[in-house]
Amino acid sequence: MLLRTLRLRTSLKPLSKHNIMRPSTSYYGPLPTSLCQSVDCCRRLHDGTDMANRSCDEAPKRLPFARVTQEDVDYFRRLLPGRTITDPDLLEACNVDWLKSVKGSSEVLLRPQSTQEVAHILSYCNHRNLAVNTQGGNTGLVGGSVPVYDEIVLSTAFMNNILSFDSVSGVLTCQAGCVLENLSLYLEERDHIMPLDLGAKGSCHIGGNVATNAGGLRLLRYGSLHGNVLGLEAVLADGQVLDCLATLRKDNTGYDLKQLFIGSEGTLGVITAVSVLCPRKPKSVNVVFLGCETFEDLLKTFQLCRGMLGEILSAFEFLDSECMRLLNTHLKLDNPISDCPFYIVIETSGSDTRHDEEKLHNFLEEAMTSSLVTDGTVATEESKSKALWSMRERVTEALTHDGFTYKYDVSLPVEKIYQLVTAMREHLGGRAKSVVGYGHVGDGNLHLNITSPARDPVLLAAIEPFIYEWTSGCQGSISAEHGLGLKKRNYIYYSKPSQAVAMMARIKSMLDPKGILNPYKTLPDHLR
Amino acid sequence: MLLRTLRLRTSLKPLSKHNIMRPSTSYYGPLPTSLCQSVDCCRRLHDGTDMANRSCDEAPKRLPFARVTQEDVDYFRRLLPGRTITDPDLLEACNVDWLKSVKGSSEVLLRPQSTQEVAHILSYCNHRNLAVNTQGGNTGLVGGSVPVYDEIVLSTAFMNNILSFDSVSGVLTCQAGCVLENLSLYLEERDHIMPLDLGAKGSCHIGGNVATNAGGLRLLRYGSLHGNVLGLEAVLADGQVLDCLATLRKDNTGYDLKQLFIGSEGTLGVITAVSVLCPRKPKSVNVVFLGCETFEDLLKTFQLCRGMLGEILSAFEFLDSECMRLLNTHLKLDNPISDCPFYIVIETSGSDTRHDEEKLHNFLEEAMTSSLVTDGTVATEESKSKALWSMRERVTEALTHDGFTYKYDVSLPVEKIYQLVTAMREHLGGRAKSVVGYGHVGDGNLHLNITSPARDPVLLAAIEPFIYEWTSGCQGSISAEHGLGLKKRNYIYYSKPSQAVAMMARIKSMLDPKGILNPYKTLPDHLR
Repeated sequence: MLLRTLRLRTSLKPLSKHNIMRPSTSYYGPLPTSLCQSVDCCRRLHDGTDMANRSCDEAPKRLPFARVTQEDVDYFRRLLPGRTITDPDLLEACNVDWLKSVKGSSEVLLRPQSTQEVAHILSYCNHRNLAVNTQGGNTGLVGGSVPVYDEIVLSTAFMNNILSFDSVSGVLTCQAGCVLENLSLYLEERDHIMPLDLGAKGSCHIGGNVATNAGGLRLLRYGSLHGNVLGLEAVLADGQVLDCLATLRKDNTGYDLKQLFIGSEGTLGVITAVSVLCPRKPKSVNVVFLGCETFEDLLKTFQLCRGMLGEILSAFEFLDSECMRLLNTHLKLDNPISDCPFYIVIETSGSDTRHDEEKLHNFLEEAMTSSLVTDGTVATEESKSKALWSMRERVTEALTHDGFTYKYDVSLPVEKIYQLVTAMREHLGGRAKSVVGYGHVGDGNLHLNITSPARDPVLLAAIEPFIYEWTSGCQGSISAEHGLGLKKRNYIYYSKPSQAVAMMARIKSMLDPKGILNPYKTLPDHLR
Repeated sequence: MLLRTLRLRTSLKPLSKHNIMRPSTSYYGPLPTSLCQSVDCCRRLHDGTDMANRSCDEAPKRLPFARVTQEDVDYFRRLLPGRTITDPDLLEACNVDWLKSVKGSSEVLLRPQSTQEVAHILSYCNHRNLAVNTQGGNTGLVGGSVPVYDEIVLSTAFMNNILSFDSVSGVLTCQAGCVLENLSLYLEERDHIMPLDLGAKGSCHIGGNVATNAGGLRLLRYGSLHGNVLGLEAVLADGQVLDCLATLRKDNTGYDLKQLFIGSEGTLGVITAVSVLCPRKPKSVNVVFLGCETFEDLLKTFQLCRGMLGEILSAFEFLDSECMRLLNTHLKLDNPISDCPFYIVIETSGSDTRHDEEKLHNFLEEAMTSSLVTDGTVATEESKSKALWSMRERVTEALTHDGFTYKYDVSLPVEKIYQLVTAMREHLGGRAKSVVGYGHVGDGNLHLNITSPARDPVLLAAIEPFIYEWTSGCQGSISAEHGLGLKKRNYIYYSKPSQAVAMMARIKSMLDPKGILNPYKTLPDHLR
């Protein structure tokens, strides 16, 4: 699995002076030069005003945080013996994001094992005015998981204990650094599943999932983490531990503080533990791969499917023929059905094999008879199911082989999802290498990816702000599940009004007055 | 329906001087005299320290808000012509809670129709330092929905427009004052249902549901409002409108601010509109009423049911034989099966009648064969289903006829739910008239109710803090779905650590610096 290759390895080398105090930052390659002029220009976006030819994409200026000294490193060494890393070779992996699109220059990586250690780290850093970048599996796609300058990297990798699992209630409690796939395997043995699943499962940490409000493949069925996370423990910027680690389905005693941290991208606190409501493992799982001639037919198939599969529908995903071409070309994956403009992956999960198969059979018969789908294949065995799923899950990987990828992740009214792909193709003409669309139809979530032989500022200027304006014009979200991170922080006004963004800044300022937690991320530059 | 009788009527009478500036407040009847001494005593609770013989139940002191003047009333009359009520007879209903347990002395009732009107009201009140109590259907059970002193009552009753419904995505957008049952009827005609249902549906407003994070009967299947509310519009204390009224299933652009308002009981802002994700209407609904000899058998039935009914299980509720006695005695409802110590109401909702009935048949056969249940009846017709449901839904009503009711609503690990009822009976000996237990087994949510011929401070002193300590000792929640309101504000530390409560107070102070919104509620007195 490609995502695994970037996982951190534990190894220690002695500190050299050379490693410390080397302030620098770089995006890989040139940046667009046009800037966001002011909040006013952005505020207007939410009101639909034209914003052509502006961009908010430049690198932020380094904020006046302290720089790490030898004394700081000595302190961390005493606190985390053997788990304070300064070897540049070892730091390389945590300074670069998975897409290799953003690079920081941190010189210290800390690997706490307990909440108390995290509390000590933050208390110290807050006192010293040292910036901190919390990192889980480093699988984020918006530059949120790596340092921008010399922020200390606080890795959750060594906080990977499962604390409890109650098979009656289905509530799992674990430390933030547990890898999603490991949790899934643990639960599978106990007749349960995680309520979320995503392509990066082999690397991503549950703490990172919660911090970024990860969506993924099962959201259609089990809902978002705002519903499934029952409890959360976080360490605030000043080192105070906020214990909201309840395991109850219902608790209306005061404001639901944990919600603030879900999706805050590490900017409000370091999530150290979570408790998650886990569904029973379905007794029967079927995966279907279908082909459609038009996107309208695909949408009609979705509606038919919602009606006929009802409560057993657990995923409705799509990819277009361009995705299939990249899977064929770069990963040598064969199309399991005949060539079509659009492909659907449907998953059912239920408690009765015969009932599920009957529902599926009836649905497929209706879909074929009414010519909504032109070809298809069904998998009931796990290995074949996985093979069909990989056609959807490995599109991201295929794209990395196609060239430099401009990635977008938008929410739109479901009927408009593919109009954006078509509009983008028309808008770009022949300037891009590939323009592909795939994503979660059931959630109205499109992944639009555009590749080019190399980083191409002219192409980027053609894509942005076109895509944001188009999305904003449909009352969509410019980040459905990836978050804002570093890359999209200044585009927030396309999806949120200025009052909301100002309130976010006030909350940030209340919880992290010095702004040491994951600086330069999520909130726009002018509000720091 | 009893709940309907308290709904406000629109009628206007001219203002008399007499109506204004009559500051007074009263609980109905005497209050316990012992006080919560300090935050420290409470802070220890979360750590399990003994707190016997203390109470935090006294009426709060009136805070130094301004008092309504004739000039204020004139202003409101100009702003809301015909919708500014000062007639004492008309004010009576909005000053008293549904249980008739708490009474305020507001002399002005405002009925805005639009968000802009709410914004004008709050801007004015904030400027004038006038306290405001937002009121929906006034069906709350913890004294959160009525004024404590002379707070202005801001009713959402005239904000009852449905703004949009998208049948493809299932997203309903409406004003806060829509009555839950009206929304359900509207959706039913459009092949959808609300994701929540509760006994007070005929009166409660969706805005109040969201403000109190209402749970109810469908939470087991569709999850909480934190997952189902997709968007929310609120007016802040200073009159600023916060527009987070998105209709998207996924939107990770910054902090999810709407979550703060869900369950904040009107203390952080006035919710003016919401958008809610609504499930498809199930094609087949079955209701089963079963009897069990022991609570252990009931829990085993629940586990069996989760496994065999799987994805079609939409409710698993229980009541004990004491509830049945009250239903028989006070409402003349006949037990549909033979007498048992425990009764279960199970609901299934699915997309295929035959499949659902087959699953249900298999489950019932297994439950009867293994002697987990001793008797039962099944309803497939709507009228009979409603009759069975009323055995569960009308327990609250039956209790009001049994005497003065001390109501508790706790979350516990599911296996401990009924132990608390038994422990309470033993603890109280013969001091109470009735001690009954019912609630949402599937959510670990017990409603424990204790009646007495009249308000009885000695009985209350025996109940509290016993019940809170017992619950806290099991890491339960002292308010699963009712909220804290006025009555339980000072008990928050039994379920939340002091750091969390302090953070809540900072959020309150940030959003409502003068504390004008629903004062005396949710947060403990010492933090005001």
